Amino acid sequence: MDSFVFQNATKIIFGKDTEKLVGSELKKEGAKNILLIYGGGSIKKSGLFGRVEASLKENGIGFTELGGVVPNPRIGLVREGSKLCREKNIDFILAVGGGSVIDSAKAISFGACYDGDPWDFFSGKAEPGENRIPLATILTIPAAGSEASDSCVITNEELNIKTHFASPLMRPVFSIMNPELTFSLPPYQTACGCMDIMAHVMERYFTKTSHVELADRLCESVLKTVIHNLPIVLKEPENYDARAEIMWAGTIAHNDLIGMGRSHCWFNHALEHQISGYYDIPHGAGLAITFPAWMKHLSSKPECQRRLCQFATNVWGVEYNYDNPLDTIMQGIERLYSFEKACGLPVSLNEVSIGSEKFELMADNLTGGGKHPAWGFYPLEKSDIIEILKLASK
Amino acid sequence: MDSFVFQNATKIIFGKDTEKLVGSELKKEGAKNILLIYGGGSIKKSGLFGRVEASLKENGIGFTELGGVVPNPRIGLVREGSKLCREKNIDFILAVGGGSVIDSAKAISFGACYDGDPWDFFSGKAEPGENRIPLATILTIPAAGSEASDSCVITNEELNIKTHFASPLMRPVFSIMNPELTFSLPPYQTACGCMDIMAHVMERYFTKTSHVELADRLCESVLKTVIHNLPIVLKEPENYDARAEIMWAGTIAHNDLIGMGRSHCWFNHALEHQISGYYDIPHGAGLAITFPAWMKHLSSKPECQRRLCQFATNVWGVEYNYDNPLDTIMQGIERLYSFEKACGLPVSLNEVSIGSEKFELMADNLTGGGKHPAWGFYPLEKSDIIEILKLASK
Repeated sequence: MDSFVFQNATKIIFGKDTEKLVGSELKKEGAKNILLIYGGGSIKKSGLFGRVEASLKENGIGFTELGGVVPNPRIGLVREGSKLCREKNIDFILAVGGGSVIDSAKAISFGACYDGDPWDFFSGKAEPGENRIPLATILTIPAAGSEASDSCVITNEELNIKTHFASPLMRPVFSIMNPELTFSLPPYQTACGCMDIMAHVMERYFTKTSHVELADRLCESVLKTVIHNLPIVLKEPENYDARAEIMWAGTIAHNDLIGMGRSHCWFNHALEHQISGYYDIPHGAGLAITFPAWMKHLSSKPECQRRLCQFATNVWGVEYNYDNPLDTIMQGIERLYSFEKACGLPVSLNEVSIGSEKFELMADNLTGGGKHPAWGFYPLEKSDIIEILKLASK
Repeated sequence: MDSFVFQNATKIIFGKDTEKLVGSELKKEGAKNILLIYGGGSIKKSGLFGRVEASLKENGIGFTELGGVVPNPRIGLVREGSKLCREKNIDFILAVGGGSVIDSAKAISFGACYDGDPWDFFSGKAEPGENRIPLATILTIPAAGSEASDSCVITNEELNIKTHFASPLMRPVFSIMNPELTFSLPPYQTACGCMDIMAHVMERYFTKTSHVELADRLCESVLKTVIHNLPIVLKEPENYDARAEIMWAGTIAHNDLIGMGRSHCWFNHALEHQISGYYDIPHGAGLAITFPAWMKHLSSKPECQRRLCQFATNVWGVEYNYDNPLDTIMQGIERLYSFEKACGLPVSLNEVSIGSEKFELMADNLTGGGKHPAWGFYPLEKSDIIEILKLASK
């Protein structure tokens, strides 16, 4: 186990009707004049906006609205939100939505306290300091884990770059999580969200660090919980218990605890950010496509086989084939494919109409034009990445 | 899953040599004049005290020593420490030791800011408010989980009462955890500590709440990790990896995360507090004795069988006996017994020279003189408790 520092102070308020507590919780934090940020307006149709508004008013909290966050959220809206916070003297930000809304809020929380362009934090031109507007969330999509994480991902639509920045001060002060708010999520979005949750675990699971037994078991717990409950909610969208398991799994997958003491990978996130940066497909759909292809590519590497076997046996229940461990691995990958297909997720780039025209460019982006490998569980050269993209097209 | 609120801001600094960071971490927190509390002085023999002292001096932090905390720590020392903090204008408390030292520090942190007797917090006469001296820990015994928990357990030696109080403000600001500091723990103390860790999980695992799948899996992960690694460290006390797994498991067992959204039990802790309140045996030894007896007593109750089966199959790897689930349960309990014995733990009150003379008294204490059952996973009348104590004597 590697040495580590772990701290996550986000307060999680979980359960039915918890959104009604938002005003009183904000009041405890001293919020008086907040920015209320959301997405396409479904929170108005569903009645959630009304309940939030009532709770804010009841507690004497004024708010300025900023709607219109889109999936793969844009730096344009972050710039607009940062300006708005300064103009309106905003003292707290409330994000109501999924990862895109929360990530936009996180970027705005730092952008509002910075004189330059908020993109500077993403490009590395500026370091996030102590200055930011605190934020809280009401989560409506279990997926990104942004409700308790210390990072945000934003797309620069002019540069076709999707990237992230992180700061411990970015963690929400509190996050309200009512599984009932996820009942209305359409099946495809539910499945994409679950794939994102699984990806957060898998990027931690595929480690080069040995002797990480407890962390492995915690990772496997989250994966098995999602694998068990996603098919249930696809059949019964209003199954509270199954929605609750998925929602809580989404937080634990990405609140840092289960990944302590080990190297992480994050290659699939980097590759997927290339794909959804150019093609604007859902992040979870992209991950469903890249992960099995990446595993297939690694299955022949002796250094990778031990862990791929563990993934097959401990997560998917494949019986270990003592005569032929590679067969164990392939069965594990096959079960991942089957699960994704059964849940309505794409497993190939062709299915989402992505051709090979940018394979070279994306592989270049991840390897500094082929000058260094992409690091992670296993170093991947430009040619490896193109091979993975080809495997992902079958 | 029940609704819940979760928050745990304790910063965990985990790994080799991390005790050397104590001065700089305290400085970041603004500490200038601290109370340094420890146990029997083994930290002086081992050299740990010297390293802590050097780090404090390097960072210009003054300290007053308070040694002499004993296992099953006493209110007497808490009173002394509380007085000392006021006399010396202490602004931060550093506990260096195991659960007894940390729990004493926690009680002192509130006692120092309270005009009355610190026992008032334990007896319920006073409520812990906002006033306390912040504290940090350097953990040397993985067991109590006090390094990230919100509660402390103290014995009133005059009244023969061992009880606890809790406050969110009691959680350490930071805890330093270096598995190397546990290399010198004797086998019996190591095993008792592991039993305490397992008990913290089992008190959460045996729940009346249904649909708590992720939390169950997380609990099982911690249990299996301790079950796997305790025999290793008993054979190889300086196995860093196995010591690290146990140490991290001890924190996760009791930092609240794995028990969210479900009813807990805590009957075995209550019963054990009776036993070690009167007889001063190690807490972990008492738990090793009570748990299997309690399970045996419950094995015939239909309401308890489902979970006792899950414990047998998922934690101990017993094959489910579809024809005879009770056989599955008994095999699980048998494996717990065998594990405890193999690790040098007592499994009966006779082994620790405790007779039946206080059975009636202890059962009375837990049931208000037989007026109400002891609550938990299953309500237990006075007669049930006496029966469990008899089963624990075989």
